[in-house]
Amino acid sequence: MDHLPRLLAVARGHTLADLVLQGGQIINVFTGEIEQDDVAVCDGRIAGIGPGYRGKTHIDLAGAYVAPGLIDAHVHLESSLCTPAQFASAVVPRGVTTVVADPHEIANVAGPAGVEFIASASAGLPLEVIVMAPSCVPATDMATSGGTLTAEDLRDLRSRGVVRGLGEVMNFPAVINADAATLAKIAAMQGRPIDGHCPAVTGHALNAYAAAGIATDHESITPEEAREKLARGLYLLIREATNAKNLDTLLPIITPANSRRICFCTDDRTPGDLLNIGSIDHMLRRAIARGIDPIDAIRMATLNPAECYGLSHVGAIAPDRLANLIVFDDLRRPEPRLVFSRGESVADWTPTAPAHAGFGAESDDPDSSAHQNTSDGALGRCHVNWNSVNLTIPARSDRIRVIGCTPDQLVTQHRILPATKSAGQAIADPSRDLLKIAVIERHRGTGNVGLGFIQGIGLRRGAIAGTFAHDHHNLVTIGADDQSMLAAARAVTTMAGGLAVAAGERVLARLPLPIGGLMTDRPINEVAAAYADLLAAARDLGSPLPDPFMAMSFMALEVIPSLKLADRGLVDVEQFKIVDLFA
Amino acid sequence: MDHLPRLLAVARGHTLADLVLQGGQIINVFTGEIEQDDVAVCDGRIAGIGPGYRGKTHIDLAGAYVAPGLIDAHVHLESSLCTPAQFASAVVPRGVTTVVADPHEIANVAGPAGVEFIASASAGLPLEVIVMAPSCVPATDMATSGGTLTAEDLRDLRSRGVVRGLGEVMNFPAVINADAATLAKIAAMQGRPIDGHCPAVTGHALNAYAAAGIATDHESITPEEAREKLARGLYLLIREATNAKNLDTLLPIITPANSRRICFCTDDRTPGDLLNIGSIDHMLRRAIARGIDPIDAIRMATLNPAECYGLSHVGAIAPDRLANLIVFDDLRRPEPRLVFSRGESVADWTPTAPAHAGFGAESDDPDSSAHQNTSDGALGRCHVNWNSVNLTIPARSDRIRVIGCTPDQLVTQHRILPATKSAGQAIADPSRDLLKIAVIERHRGTGNVGLGFIQGIGLRRGAIAGTFAHDHHNLVTIGADDQSMLAAARAVTTMAGGLAVAAGERVLARLPLPIGGLMTDRPINEVAAAYADLLAAARDLGSPLPDPFMAMSFMALEVIPSLKLADRGLVDVEQFKIVDLFA
Repeated sequence: MDHLPRLLAVARGHTLADLVLQGGQIINVFTGEIEQDDVAVCDGRIAGIGPGYRGKTHIDLAGAYVAPGLIDAHVHLESSLCTPAQFASAVVPRGVTTVVADPHEIANVAGPAGVEFIASASAGLPLEVIVMAPSCVPATDMATSGGTLTAEDLRDLRSRGVVRGLGEVMNFPAVINADAATLAKIAAMQGRPIDGHCPAVTGHALNAYAAAGIATDHESITPEEAREKLARGLYLLIREATNAKNLDTLLPIITPANSRRICFCTDDRTPGDLLNIGSIDHMLRRAIARGIDPIDAIRMATLNPAECYGLSHVGAIAPDRLANLIVFDDLRRPEPRLVFSRGESVADWTPTAPAHAGFGAESDDPDSSAHQNTSDGALGRCHVNWNSVNLTIPARSDRIRVIGCTPDQLVTQHRILPATKSAGQAIADPSRDLLKIAVIERHRGTGNVGLGFIQGIGLRRGAIAGTFAHDHHNLVTIGADDQSMLAAARAVTTMAGGLAVAAGERVLARLPLPIGGLMTDRPINEVAAAYADLLAAARDLGSPLPDPFMAMSFMALEVIPSLKLADRGLVDVEQFKIVDLFA
Repeated sequence: MDHLPRLLAVARGHTLADLVLQGGQIINVFTGEIEQDDVAVCDGRIAGIGPGYRGKTHIDLAGAYVAPGLIDAHVHLESSLCTPAQFASAVVPRGVTTVVADPHEIANVAGPAGVEFIASASAGLPLEVIVMAPSCVPATDMATSGGTLTAEDLRDLRSRGVVRGLGEVMNFPAVINADAATLAKIAAMQGRPIDGHCPAVTGHALNAYAAAGIATDHESITPEEAREKLARGLYLLIREATNAKNLDTLLPIITPANSRRICFCTDDRTPGDLLNIGSIDHMLRRAIARGIDPIDAIRMATLNPAECYGLSHVGAIAPDRLANLIVFDDLRRPEPRLVFSRGESVADWTPTAPAHAGFGAESDDPDSSAHQNTSDGALGRCHVNWNSVNLTIPARSDRIRVIGCTPDQLVTQHRILPATKSAGQAIADPSRDLLKIAVIERHRGTGNVGLGFIQGIGLRRGAIAGTFAHDHHNLVTIGADDQSMLAAARAVTTMAGGLAVAAGERVLARLPLPIGGLMTDRPINEVAAAYADLLAAARDLGSPLPDPFMAMSFMALEVIPSLKLADRGLVDVEQFKIVDLFA
């Protein structure tokens, strides 16, 4: 509150403002009207709206529109493969000045320290990062995660002010069935916003999920599902992620009467998408282009999420709120040409360059890669005792379970097929699009290696590997032969985590992600370029998928049907248990 | 959270609900639509909405409408002259199941104990009483109040969960000018709702007021004022009080785009108004009758105040919210015929009768009246040492300052008139409508007696007296002669507080208000009848005012212009200082 005497003096017009934006057309998200007025800024906050303010700096907006900075209501920053600073450098110039972040990925690697990393790495950025405490870490006990978050951890993060609420409660069956441990986590965040995640949950089950105190959902994929969730009191977060696009389908349900309960979110976007397509700015333009009233659309990207998450300091142009603003010329197609964060112009903002070397640096000493970790210290581990790793699969029978990966689906098929055998072993057989998949535990030194087979990735030779693998983020590799798989996987551990493509002994492409095996602090455009190189290398090896790394990252996620591979073995998700590779 | 396993079992349909409301038309305040669906209730909460629920009790609504219980966004319960229970008995049957209460009056009498009395006396009622911490106790140091509330007191009330936020910050000049003590009170409630009160504040001053973090205002009397406050981000609480009616004037500003930021409140209503006209139910019907869309109007009385005050447990029909519901037949004129509070039918609810005797009981021993105080113990004092009270005014000059009371106005005129003199004293002169007024300090034994003259009350003879006198609630009496004034005032102290009318030695009517000198726990219909008797007696003595007690209750309020009387003397409010009675 120490800022108030000066802020109020500026508001009264008794003290010069730091900045006055003159002659703009203000989008007033409270009234739904457009006001011709000036905006006075002091110490990063809005002091006043109206005529007669003088400031140290004046900017003449000459009739351009001024709206609140945009809010992404739900995002996993880690999907950008970048630190919060690098993520911000992609979205802030596009007008996104607040994100509600669920650091679910890094929490699975590093537990509470991962959550605190996201919070501390976001301090001082021109992006308000509202951190939610991940609710489902680990997802199950069938896989080995690096970190865990208990109800006690959640209470601690809350009491220390690290988190605002509870991140998406993905274990919706546990909520609906009143699982005690899950309800304890909800209780730990009582009175705070609690995000939901309940794909295709309707009827009585939806009532139970909502009755537990869940406040939002972003998993609706049909208009009927979205309408029912809205009616049961869940805020509808319309998602447009890289791998899950719901915007066009859900736009038709928006009415003037229900739009106050609707927000936009990106959930997961790749660095390339963030740079080339955008973020909430992209959703805003698309919604308007498809017929949503521009002011209603802007409210869905500003005031609505601010209300949903109780963020009274952002989401509107009003006294006391942060001077997070966007300026644009075309109300039918808002393209921010000026962006202000706490009153500073940030349309060209880039983070201070990291001091260390770029992707070129490499070492066979795993510890040397720790220099790419942040000053917060290493987050999690990426250590594998390669002497104990053996990818061979003795053929104990003729029939094997095979993960059937289908394009653009996280759900897999559970296939039972003849094995291809050689010298008493079950082997990969690219002629049948039958590849081997291994999940190598990398967090705790258990030596666990899960082995299986997969169809649908399409490599003709070589292998891909990576540590970005939902949710536990062990080291996963898929390949046509063991040598390539080991080469790709070893390349990843050499980088202390990341993604790699190999053929035989040769590493063809790599992207180091030394921060928890998930993120890097290199510039996001370099990350996007390196990622494109990875995709090109995989394509050269025969994969027809637009993104085999994205596909791979979900093949170890033991909570999505039907057959997945964890470090402890093959998981039949319908039965929710580990099953034998040989059927 | 212990309720959740059973609530969720009912929601899933695995356990019988306590109650199922079948065949109703549900007003869905989230979607703005009307749903034909059933509502299942468990342990006072809504478990589920939809078909297929079975319960221990079923009620067939046969197509009637079901809406959330109504919310009064701002009310001083003390203005009903009744305890929360008796207030509830008037408003709950009308469908008001939640009130946001600012116990400003009792706090001026009893400090934090007054706030806690309202909270504890509200526990277990079929009315959710959300208590706000009064922000301006005492209003100034020119009057002697019984209680004070410091920033430290506010923090304590907050930390112990007694209060939700900060009550209307009436000292708007102090806020705007960044007065440190006032900002400290706001700081004590940071992150909580903070109610405003800023009549006629506009422009730069309004920006400053809003910049301090004020969230609401209920003092708008013109459409322009209301529109500007909405635009600056203040929730607009439209008020329809007994003595301040703004509804008809402000209804025209409501649009579908701004209505989400608008709520209804009653502020102050007399017992008679509550019984005969109603509460928020009355505002709802009137708003609809004047053209507001019924569902928008219902939202203004339910979801909007719930959002404004962060009350996620009321304000909508949704799983997990309290089963506070109203049932009515005509959407164009909602008259609740069933009311549910936490799932219990309360349309006929009355409090358990108080054990002690009614108004007939009387005693000359002031302490004997303490039996009407609650088990919380005496709230404040109503003790006057009559031996030291002398109402005579030696005539030190020929010209006196006179409070000019004008009908339906809290603002008075500051008149300078010739004194009527007799035997060296300045005296009342009913022939000139010149009455004497005295403010007798009753809280702290200071012996202070403020004396003055007033026009506009119109008594031809006799006197009125009372301890309900904003804001400090000292004992005020207005009369045509000292004997009547003393008789009326003594009658009040004999009752341990209340209202009385006397002529000569004879007490003509009385209403004991032994709880802090403000409230009684007698049935509200008895209170309304006794109040009507008081008005009739005053009318018989010549007062043409519809309510001379209401008028008197504002004559000692030293913060409203122009001339008022405090126990320390006559206050020139424009100069904000005590001035001599003789000009």
